[in-house]
Amino acid sequence: MENPLLSAIAFNADGLVPCIAQQHDTGEVLMMAWMNRDAVAETLSTGRVCYYSRSRRGLWRKGETSGQVQTLKELRLDCDGDTLLALVDQLGVACHTGRRSCFYQAEREGELVAITAPEISPDKLYGH
Amino acid sequence: MENPLLSAIAFNADGLVPCIAQQHDTGEVLMMAWMNRDAVAETLSTGRVCYYSRSRRGLWRKGETSGQVQTLKELRLDCDGDTLLALVDQLGVACHTGRRSCFYQAEREGELVAITAPEISPDKLYGH
Repeated sequence: MENPLLSAIAFNADGLVPCIAQQHDTGEVLMMAWMNRDAVAETLSTGRVCYYSRSRRGLWRKGETSGQVQTLKELRLDCDGDTLLALVDQLGVACHTGRRSCFYQAEREGELVAITAPEISPDKLYGH
Repeated sequence: MENPLLSAIAFNADGLVPCIAQQHDTGEVLMMAWMNRDAVAETLSTGRVCYYSRSRRGLWRKGETSGQVQTLKELRLDCDGDTLLALVDQLGVACHTGRRSCFYQAEREGELVAITAPEISPDKLYGH
């Protein structure tokens, strides 16, 4: 029997649903990415968050290359069934720039600036 | 001169960008909705969050009908420039069901259930 949450998701015309990742204890919003049906199913069955990469057109097991995995604490669905909120435990950093959160660009004094610094260099993160 | 954050947004093929609303002090993720260029511009200029309703095909000034407005504290853009995070002060409830957050569906003992109760009835919210 299919998972009841999976059955309730209203995937878009491309078969995708946006998923917001939030650090379960601090409340920090880490990133937003997309999932297809297989990604949601894998996330629920393994407890490791798996997205769908629209550029690579395939499953994107978060942390597979960087080691910065997301352990699922709870998956929630919104009122319309078309957006997911994943409460996760993020190991290290969520952003490919080496920052904890992807949401680091904001306006300061008329300019768009990075309001947080990388915690680790992308070179180190991806082993180049 | 256009706002530097607005200029940096990578809108999708439909001219839209997803925006996550988070209560600025508690960290609660309230909802996710879409914005077009005009909605972002209005949000930045008025300090009241305005989305774009895909069903109504027009600007959706959050709280216009229900009174449950969102005051903008800060608008942040993610690393790829294709998702916004709005730190807001939500008056009352964000969800049309009368719940504080739209993300209230989760699995409990094999069933999809509502994990929070409405704080106000939708009838009262929309004055029916």
